[in-house]
Amino acid sequence: MSPLEDTLNRIGAPDAAAAASARARQARLTKPPGSLGALEELAVRIAGITGNPVPDLGQGVVFVMAADHGVAGVSAYPREVTAAMVRNFLAGGAAVNALAAFAGFRVSVTDCGVASDLPAVPGLRSRKIRRGTDDITRGPAMSRDEARLSVEIGIEAFEEERSAAPFGIAAAGEMGIGNTTPSSAVVAALTGEPPRGVTGRGTGVDDRGLARKIAAVERALAVNRPDPSDPLDVLSKVGGFEIGAMAGVFLAAAARNVPVLVDGFISAAAALIARGLCPRAAEYMIAGHRSVEPGQAAALGLLGLRPVLDLGMRLGEGTGAVLAAAVCRAACEVHARMATFEEAGVPGSPAGGPA
Amino acid sequence: MSPLEDTLNRIGAPDAAAAASARARQARLTKPPGSLGALEELAVRIAGITGNPVPDLGQGVVFVMAADHGVAGVSAYPREVTAAMVRNFLAGGAAVNALAAFAGFRVSVTDCGVASDLPAVPGLRSRKIRRGTDDITRGPAMSRDEARLSVEIGIEAFEEERSAAPFGIAAAGEMGIGNTTPSSAVVAALTGEPPRGVTGRGTGVDDRGLARKIAAVERALAVNRPDPSDPLDVLSKVGGFEIGAMAGVFLAAAARNVPVLVDGFISAAAALIARGLCPRAAEYMIAGHRSVEPGQAAALGLLGLRPVLDLGMRLGEGTGAVLAAAVCRAACEVHARMATFEEAGVPGSPAGGPA
Repeated sequence: MSPLEDTLNRIGAPDAAAAASARARQARLTKPPGSLGALEELAVRIAGITGNPVPDLGQGVVFVMAADHGVAGVSAYPREVTAAMVRNFLAGGAAVNALAAFAGFRVSVTDCGVASDLPAVPGLRSRKIRRGTDDITRGPAMSRDEARLSVEIGIEAFEEERSAAPFGIAAAGEMGIGNTTPSSAVVAALTGEPPRGVTGRGTGVDDRGLARKIAAVERALAVNRPDPSDPLDVLSKVGGFEIGAMAGVFLAAAARNVPVLVDGFISAAAALIARGLCPRAAEYMIAGHRSVEPGQAAALGLLGLRPVLDLGMRLGEGTGAVLAAAVCRAACEVHARMATFEEAGVPGSPAGGPA
Repeated sequence: MSPLEDTLNRIGAPDAAAAASARARQARLTKPPGSLGALEELAVRIAGITGNPVPDLGQGVVFVMAADHGVAGVSAYPREVTAAMVRNFLAGGAAVNALAAFAGFRVSVTDCGVASDLPAVPGLRSRKIRRGTDDITRGPAMSRDEARLSVEIGIEAFEEERSAAPFGIAAAGEMGIGNTTPSSAVVAALTGEPPRGVTGRGTGVDDRGLARKIAAVERALAVNRPDPSDPLDVLSKVGGFEIGAMAGVFLAAAARNVPVLVDGFISAAAALIARGLCPRAAEYMIAGHRSVEPGQAAALGLLGLRPVLDLGMRLGEGTGAVLAAAVCRAACEVHARMATFEEAGVPGSPAGGPA
């Protein structure tokens, strides 16, 4: 059995008993029922995902998947920025490094297909499929075998990190100049939304740049005709290597009962690929933040997820995901550390809440 | 000069040069300009508040002000819960204790007027004005001297904590069964909004309870006729001892150039009192989260603040404030730790951003 099929086979339902037990505990904690809002829901969801009624998240890992793209003229930045930012991740100077340190995450960087050479350094997982995808406005981004390989690279990264040191929460982020365009194509293909509704300004293109991006997405869909019922077909025709690798991270996390945070738009596109391969995988995902990119809402809608944060972020790298993971951590700390009405001797209603 | 006048006199404008320097630094960091959204704005604001272009927040203090209220029949919980929850804070079992530990805050608890006796323990600042306010539906909550004293208790708490151990960020929270009703009266008086628009379900009253609360707020305003141009008049007539004490915390923080987080509805009502005493004090405040209570939006609108988080919380105690303080801390870490384009050798436009 291939790593992908093996992973898909291992994805079961979250632990309903653990979630119910966590919900019962929340009702006994010294606060009006429901008054911690999303923090209560997060603790209950994470209990179900981990199978632990009082989850202890421990360290986290943010998987930053990097690759380049064949589609041209869609970004405000030159392609060389992808490799330069990978070096920045390895040197610890990027936003994701600072936020990961803050949130108790380590940063795991994989080169899935960066166009330039990158140094063979210990912090970098070198799994270059090739030097960037082909231009999706002229044909498929990659072969079907390459699409499957990209997903398996994500699974492998997850399993390797798991062997290296245990972690209790994960996040999937990326770096790839131009990758909001294939993400728009993936989201349009899988949600049925028109390209115009799911294409935004990325790192900051102007009105002409936005029109070029929308035209590129429309052309990519017309040229490739991806089959929405076949997520590997969508990935191979209009996706990217890092999008496939993030999909692999989502699947591996679900298979290992690890809560995994979706970052911004590109991460949400990858989450849709993972959901296409196994609908239940979405039950292990937590949407980190509302991205400025308009297509993210359509993707999260199909995933059935509501973002934890809404801070006007649009950076990628996993930044919004790890920041939201800090909120998940806070939710679990409150859940574990608070006293119950009985323990604290606080009067509540007979049910432990207000009358 | 009284502690209140002394504090008001010391409140100057935030440091525009430090804020400008922080903004310039943000533009040089390795990310598209603006892509960290609210995190960038928070770092710049905190730079201005602290006068440090690269702020280091250090430890935080959340001031939990506790008192009881004379107005009856407005809460789902009995009055004894105030004292029981104060004991819970001191034992470390409440939500604010868990979230404060998570966010690097210590919890400072002050009894400003709890109706029951509380033990004289080291963790508790005993400054009981008296055993709860009078019923605002029949006359003023307290005398004008008591209103001033309550504000000065907050200032004193801030200064005492400052002498005990340095801290770089603060938050103002509370405990007081029934205190959403006086808060609605304060917000209605100071914003001019009708009581119906600024009165909610508090810890969870039903429709009849809500109607009773709205009627109580209407009666309190009709009986007392608070003068919106005189914040101590509003506080004395329809406020509470803990509301005054929180106002004192906001003023003391502004006078000491310490960023201070507003928590939920009651904290926002106290922030309005502080703003009434010194409009510039609002420039030192950060709104932690969007409360479920409808009156909070009106208060934040007048304060000119937009909340960092929106998690459906309605617990008080300072819980939403300290959780949002963690986001402020993340914003400052990103601001301080990220590499610039030059440092990282990442190509940007000549201006350090995309072309």
